[in-house]
Amino acid sequence: MMTQLWIENGLFVTMDETNPKINGHMVITDDRITYIGAEAPVDLLPDVQKLDGSKLAFMPGLINTHGHAAMTLLRGFSDDQNLQVWLQEKMWPMEAKYVDADTKAGSALAIVEMLRSGTTTFVDMYDRMDQVATMTEQAGIRGILTRGVIGLCSEEEQKTKLNDAITFARDWNGKADGRISTMLSPHAPYTCPPEYIEKFVQAAHDLNLPLHTHMSETLAEVEMNVRDYGVRPVEHLDRLGFFSRPALVAHAVHLTDEEIALLAARNVSVSHNPVSNLKLASGIARLSDMLNAGVKVSLGTDSVASNNNLDLFEEIRFSALLHKGISGDPTAIPALEALKLGTIYGAEAIWQSDRIGALKVGMKADFIAIDIDQAHFYPMTDIVSHLVYSGSGRDVKHVWVDGRQVVRNSICTMLDEEKIRYEAQASFERLLKG
Amino acid sequence: MMTQLWIENGLFVTMDETNPKINGHMVITDDRITYIGAEAPVDLLPDVQKLDGSKLAFMPGLINTHGHAAMTLLRGFSDDQNLQVWLQEKMWPMEAKYVDADTKAGSALAIVEMLRSGTTTFVDMYDRMDQVATMTEQAGIRGILTRGVIGLCSEEEQKTKLNDAITFARDWNGKADGRISTMLSPHAPYTCPPEYIEKFVQAAHDLNLPLHTHMSETLAEVEMNVRDYGVRPVEHLDRLGFFSRPALVAHAVHLTDEEIALLAARNVSVSHNPVSNLKLASGIARLSDMLNAGVKVSLGTDSVASNNNLDLFEEIRFSALLHKGISGDPTAIPALEALKLGTIYGAEAIWQSDRIGALKVGMKADFIAIDIDQAHFYPMTDIVSHLVYSGSGRDVKHVWVDGRQVVRNSICTMLDEEKIRYEAQASFERLLKG
Repeated sequence: MMTQLWIENGLFVTMDETNPKINGHMVITDDRITYIGAEAPVDLLPDVQKLDGSKLAFMPGLINTHGHAAMTLLRGFSDDQNLQVWLQEKMWPMEAKYVDADTKAGSALAIVEMLRSGTTTFVDMYDRMDQVATMTEQAGIRGILTRGVIGLCSEEEQKTKLNDAITFARDWNGKADGRISTMLSPHAPYTCPPEYIEKFVQAAHDLNLPLHTHMSETLAEVEMNVRDYGVRPVEHLDRLGFFSRPALVAHAVHLTDEEIALLAARNVSVSHNPVSNLKLASGIARLSDMLNAGVKVSLGTDSVASNNNLDLFEEIRFSALLHKGISGDPTAIPALEALKLGTIYGAEAIWQSDRIGALKVGMKADFIAIDIDQAHFYPMTDIVSHLVYSGSGRDVKHVWVDGRQVVRNSICTMLDEEKIRYEAQASFERLLKG
Repeated sequence: MMTQLWIENGLFVTMDETNPKINGHMVITDDRITYIGAEAPVDLLPDVQKLDGSKLAFMPGLINTHGHAAMTLLRGFSDDQNLQVWLQEKMWPMEAKYVDADTKAGSALAIVEMLRSGTTTFVDMYDRMDQVATMTEQAGIRGILTRGVIGLCSEEEQKTKLNDAITFARDWNGKADGRISTMLSPHAPYTCPPEYIEKFVQAAHDLNLPLHTHMSETLAEVEMNVRDYGVRPVEHLDRLGFFSRPALVAHAVHLTDEEIALLAARNVSVSHNPVSNLKLASGIARLSDMLNAGVKVSLGTDSVASNNNLDLFEEIRFSALLHKGISGDPTAIPALEALKLGTIYGAEAIWQSDRIGALKVGMKADFIAIDIDQAHFYPMTDIVSHLVYSGSGRDVKHVWVDGRQVVRNSICTMLDEEKIRYEAQASFERLLKG
């Protein structure tokens, strides 16, 4: 049986160039947008549901293109530390203690936070990915999931991990009514030997899947790449065939002009993680230069262990503000460009712009409603400016993914939030002791 | 008749070095904190009110040390522009049309936003300050108010403006049960001739008031100062006697080591406005260097026309993140230092640390309650980290100023928020036409 929702008298920020802002109506039929326009819709189903859209702004759901949801258990566990202390003394020992229940608890907590703050699609790279996929299925969110593999181990272990990654990617791709898709992920050029990365490239060809990795996050890792392999990471990955597949690289902080040109030429997607890069003092990515060169840039939070939250509005705001201050050019990354980074560009970065990232007829109904009847959205001048410079995930009131309402009045409809908070706390305390 | 409030079983982030974090109780008697500690209080009034503090974190109210509340009407009116276009083509023509009702409407909107996001004390520099003071009195917020004077005009106009500033400062200082105090403010060294600034210094001595001004916000204005007066702004103001009074300077972006040393030696207060400085691409202040040199730094939003919001949690977060990224040192501006910037350092910057900025016995009861039973505050690890890296003004549930509850369940108790939003919109539309 078909279901239909008519949103009346809303303000729609569409991210569709031909019709960027609509005061009017939108109709969702099952999982798709079937009408959007200034005029009231006609020919609706007899039992169409109605929602009063006044005092709300609607926009595409946000797309978070890099993260590690299970690490949400480590929020606030180690801040303001040097990278090596943070990683080797704090993160790794805790992560080594994870069991399935912890990955599940951390992912669930992350998904609650993401959905409530308006993220409808997230990229996740971690291990025990069955747990993350199960939570994704249950929560109603859209996920691009991938088992991240560190290859600094024996050949046998490498083989086991690669097979694990392949099995996960094959089993879950297209699952949850198509909400889940998968990738293959050698963790990073500095944590995977070249021949091991090549095996991932081959598997990605065999399975017709994209690739995801961390790249050029810190200056130290770039220098190590040059020392070990004679080239910088972009050329290194290119030589290994990484960019012969659709590829998404996270961070891309330290790039030369030549590397930016090569990323553009190879149509590589970049996940810019401004907050994580600031917090770990990794540096500030050349966002304007990448965009000007035609690189497909999007936004990611990275894990909360280096953020420490999953509100993508914050990444949007940092993108708009930071690159003005750094460049000395107040016209850099205008508000609309920043909002695109979190929506339509995110969809392009994960090769789903035919389905998500904009509000127009035929697209999947992944969208959010923002309560704009609050002081910080007044006066009503430029809604795009308000969303970028004054908005927050806390202003999100309703969220739909695939036509299903997954957040209603700021509460996740498919999840028991109280239980999830409780279990996350219990997991963290067990990890701390264990 | 005395009133008494007992907050039971709360988590208190005190900003008091001797007792930074308390799981326990706080008692407010009239306008003061009369007890705070782990044990339940004794000897309370028979009719003491009780508040269940569980699932809440309490901390001192935030202190915003630079802004122009009335400009809240211009939120989103001009973004992503070069400074001169923004100022000369957009801001000034609109501001020239302001009448009293607009200043009142803009200030009211700003105060709603500030109170709801946990700011209990704000510094405001603008004109028509009677309107701002009246709203401050009515809203229950604490204000340090000052008529900002641009001196690029005839001697007669200069005299009128100075008298206006003096009259306002004299009439309102200490009003609203002491919640309002005043300062004198030549707008900036580049908008006031030296001899005019000297008249403000003299008046500040006569009235025993502090001084406030904009200083070294842009490189261009520093260069102009050197060209016109042969010295950079800090030395220029020092020569004019500005620092012989308690003085608060906003921005202080472009400073030499010598200027930082002089600001420290003269005990000058600085209002660091990281978001505004990024948005207008003015530059990035040397926050760590100022703090290391012993300069009294605090945080300000500046007006929403260059921010575009008044959530001081955001300035706190930007302070913590930005200066790590810029310096390459992830240990720069740790979370606690960032939180101090928005609380106790703010109180010191406005010479009120004997009264506000910390939760301890004898202090004024200016404090806020934050709803920490939300996904983004889990797991409960380090509350200071969570407030700085994951918190937001939207998480503020209750606010007290001078012992009176001015926000209850996220709604201002003393103000008609709906009317204020409506009037702000009406004022903006009138300005746009007029």
